[in-house]
Amino acid sequence: MTREMEIICVGNELLIGKTLNTNAQWIAKQATALGINVKRVTVVADDVNEIATAIRETLKRKSHFVITTGGLGPTFDDKTLEGIAEALNRKLAVNDEALKMVREKYEAYAMEKGMETVELTPARIKMAMLPEKAEPIPNPVGTAPGVQVDLEETMLIVLPGVPSEMEAIFHETVASLLKQASGKSVFYEKSIYADSVMESSLAPLIDKVMRDNPGVYVKSHPKGRENRSHIEIHVSITAREGEKSEEKLQKAITQLCSEIGKIGGKVVLTS
Amino acid sequence: MTREMEIICVGNELLIGKTLNTNAQWIAKQATALGINVKRVTVVADDVNEIATAIRETLKRKSHFVITTGGLGPTFDDKTLEGIAEALNRKLAVNDEALKMVREKYEAYAMEKGMETVELTPARIKMAMLPEKAEPIPNPVGTAPGVQVDLEETMLIVLPGVPSEMEAIFHETVASLLKQASGKSVFYEKSIYADSVMESSLAPLIDKVMRDNPGVYVKSHPKGRENRSHIEIHVSITAREGEKSEEKLQKAITQLCSEIGKIGGKVVLTS
Repeated sequence: MTREMEIICVGNELLIGKTLNTNAQWIAKQATALGINVKRVTVVADDVNEIATAIRETLKRKSHFVITTGGLGPTFDDKTLEGIAEALNRKLAVNDEALKMVREKYEAYAMEKGMETVELTPARIKMAMLPEKAEPIPNPVGTAPGVQVDLEETMLIVLPGVPSEMEAIFHETVASLLKQASGKSVFYEKSIYADSVMESSLAPLIDKVMRDNPGVYVKSHPKGRENRSHIEIHVSITAREGEKSEEKLQKAITQLCSEIGKIGGKVVLTS
Repeated sequence: MTREMEIICVGNELLIGKTLNTNAQWIAKQATALGINVKRVTVVADDVNEIATAIRETLKRKSHFVITTGGLGPTFDDKTLEGIAEALNRKLAVNDEALKMVREKYEAYAMEKGMETVELTPARIKMAMLPEKAEPIPNPVGTAPGVQVDLEETMLIVLPGVPSEMEAIFHETVASLLKQASGKSVFYEKSIYADSVMESSLAPLIDKVMRDNPGVYVKSHPKGRENRSHIEIHVSITAREGEKSEEKLQKAITQLCSEIGKIGGKVVLTS
C-alpha cells in the first residue's frame, strides 16, 4: 500500500516571495524516491492561527506522514510548535530531552568560544518547549531539535526551515521512518524529449500509451512555445519492488517513441 | 484595506520534486510589491478532485484574489478548468472568445510553417472549454488562454504553468487588476546582516524593535550555524502611500543596529 504524505512549510519569507521554497521540492523528491506519494504542499505564514488551521485540515485528510518545515528557532515568530499544540489541543511544555539537546549545543558553543557558560535564556529554552507527548529529534547541524508526534493515523514530523538542518535531520532520522512505512515501494522515472511536434499533437498519443501501459504515468512539459516546440515527456511509475517496473517503464517509452515518429516528431534523449 | 491572495499551483511535477515551484515565488513577489497580502500557497496534483477540493477550501477563506497556475494545456492531465468547474458547480463549455484566441494561434502557426491549416482537434478545443460565465485572458506567449472568473467575494485568475506564459499574462493583464484593488498599498523591505551574535541573542532585541515600531516586521534568517553565525535580518512594512513608510523602516533599522551593537554584534550591510 502506498503511503501518502503532506508537506506544510511555515514562513512569511515564502509568502512575500523573498525565499524560493527549495525545502518542499527537496522533501518531495526524497519522499517520492522512497516510494511515498506526496499529496499536497501548503505554505502558511508565521502565525499561530494559520499554522494550527493548516495542521488541522491536513490531519483530517489522514495522510500517513505530515512533514512541516520552518518556525522552530528562538525568535518570537517561530511559532510552529505553538500552532501544532493548538491544533492538537495539547499544552506546550519544556521537554527534558529536548532541553538537554539544546543545553549541549550551547555548552559546546561556550567551550568553542572560551566562554564559561551560555545562559539558557527564555528564547533558548523556547526551542525545547514541545507539545505534550511529542519527542525531540536530534539536530546534527543546528540548535533547534526536530520533533516527532505520533498520532492515531498520522506521524507528524516537524523540521527546521534552514535547509542544511532540515536535510541533516531528514537523512539521519526521517528517511528510515519513511522507508520503513513505504516498504518495498519504488519510483522510477525517465524523460525523453520531442522536437518538431506540438504538445496538442502529442496529447492523443499520451492518452493511448497510458491506456496501453497501466501504472505508467506520462506527462508532457513544453519547454519552448507551442510553435517552436521542444517538449520534455516525463514517464514514471510507482510500484512494488520485483514488479518489473523498469521493464514496464521502458516498454511505455518504446511505444511513445514509435508513436511520436509516426506523426513526424523527432525524439531526442537529452534536453 | 489590504487585499489578500491565495495561490494554488497544480502539477504532479511539483509533488514528486521534479520541478521547483518558481511560479509561486514569482507571483508572491509581484503581488507583495503591489501591496497584496499573500496568505497561503497550496500545491495539488493533476487530479480533478484534488483541484476542486483545494479551490473550494480556498474560496471559503474569502481572499480577494485566488491565482492558480498549471493545468491549462491540451493533454489529458491538464485538469484545472475541470476542477474549477466542479468546485463552482458550473458546466464546462466551449467559450467562443477563447476558441477564437486558440484558433488564431494555430492559424499563425500554420502560416509560419507554410501549412494550409492546423486542424482544431479535441485536444486543442479543450483549451477553450471554460466554466460557464468565465472570461478568457489573452496569452501573449503561448496557446492556452488564461481565465478570469469573477465570484461574489473572490476574483479567480487561472494561469498556465509554463513560467514565460504565466509571467506574460500576469504583466499584461493581472498586475493592473491587483494594483487597482490594492489601491495605494505599498511594500518596503530591506535586509541588514549581523555577525558575531547568535540568533537566540537577537530574539529579545527583535521583540523590542517590533514593539517600538508598530507596523514594521522584523525577521531573522540564520545563514550559518548558530555558533558560526551570519544572520540576515529582514525588515519590512506594508502601508498606504504617503504614510512615511520608508522613514518608519529606516527608524527601525537604526534602532536595530544600535541594539545589536550594544550586545557586541557587528552589523554589515551586505550578505
